[in-house]
Amino acid sequence: MARKTGSHSDITGPKIRAAAERLFARHGYAAVSMRQIAAEVGVQAGALYLYTPDKQSLLAGLMRDHLEALIASWKTQTPASHPHDRLRQFVRFHIGYHIDRPDAVFIAYMELRNLEPDRFAEIEALRRSYEAELEAILRDGQAAGVFELADPRLASMALIAMLTGVTNWYREGGRLSRAEVEELYADMALKSVGRVA
Amino acid sequence: MARKTGSHSDITGPKIRAAAERLFARHGYAAVSMRQIAAEVGVQAGALYLYTPDKQSLLAGLMRDHLEALIASWKTQTPASHPHDRLRQFVRFHIGYHIDRPDAVFIAYMELRNLEPDRFAEIEALRRSYEAELEAILRDGQAAGVFELADPRLASMALIAMLTGVTNWYREGGRLSRAEVEELYADMALKSVGRVA
Repeated sequence: MARKTGSHSDITGPKIRAAAERLFARHGYAAVSMRQIAAEVGVQAGALYLYTPDKQSLLAGLMRDHLEALIASWKTQTPASHPHDRLRQFVRFHIGYHIDRPDAVFIAYMELRNLEPDRFAEIEALRRSYEAELEAILRDGQAAGVFELADPRLASMALIAMLTGVTNWYREGGRLSRAEVEELYADMALKSVGRVA
Repeated sequence: MARKTGSHSDITGPKIRAAAERLFARHGYAAVSMRQIAAEVGVQAGALYLYTPDKQSLLAGLMRDHLEALIASWKTQTPASHPHDRLRQFVRFHIGYHIDRPDAVFIAYMELRNLEPDRFAEIEALRRSYEAELEAILRDGQAAGVFELADPRLASMALIAMLTGVTNWYREGGRLSRAEVEELYADMALKSVGRVA
């Protein structure tokens, strides 16, 4: 594969991925052709195939890169010791990371239907491993007696959907600042898994 | 408009909407042509235009029908009197209604990007009026002293995202029954807006 060898491909590869991400998010994977992606980058359609074997690989690559970078970024955070603080940390991290990447988030959720089975399994496993990070926080809190949860697995999926939903409506300069949104969601998340009053 | 006059159009109109819904959910709005929709229904492409002026009207119509039916269905429920029970009722209703309509839900969220501005404003107003139903429950509970909320508007959006997320993973015959999922989410939702322990 020529993808990562020359200096030229080092530049073109990221450009192709960025163009594909923009176009997939705007029009949907099925409506975008390799020709359109090439035009967006400013190369011939044939040149695209030096960097990626097909459109399916490009889509799976975008999703894989997004989820791997998300997990890696979370793992760079110094873990807070108390489960309350750790959950707040996760909420702030998740919202902040996703608000900055609306196209990647949109594609990662919406184009799952267009992945072939093997790719789907790979992407699902990555998503599952990210969800497991939150589930571990919830289980630790439950073991420590500060959280009360009937089903930590389900609670982690419920919370991630709640937090990711911010990307559907959040706009910089809106009624609430990013920090305010993060704190309000952290409060709700903490209460949702807390002990009953 | 011939859309709702003859008996023939009474049958063909719903068939066209059902076919468009299936195809938009599967491939995405931008990737589906009027010709494909006609082929799915088994009519000539030209015949489609007797029922809908264009693909944009078809999309907006699907979203409008979905949201209007959702709101109408919610309004048929006899309101529980205690805010706790009313919130449980909303959670059960929302999850049950959405689980049964994955294509409509997918389109209502994902194809907003493809609506022209006037249509977008109309659909957003409908969505907002549904969210306001939940917000009213939260405000009533706050006024009654049983809920504790910094921002009922934000809490209603957060909860709706959490509940709608069930459609991404729920499968009949899975680990949890529909009733179990509804109860677990109702518990989390209630705690998330409850008083701090």
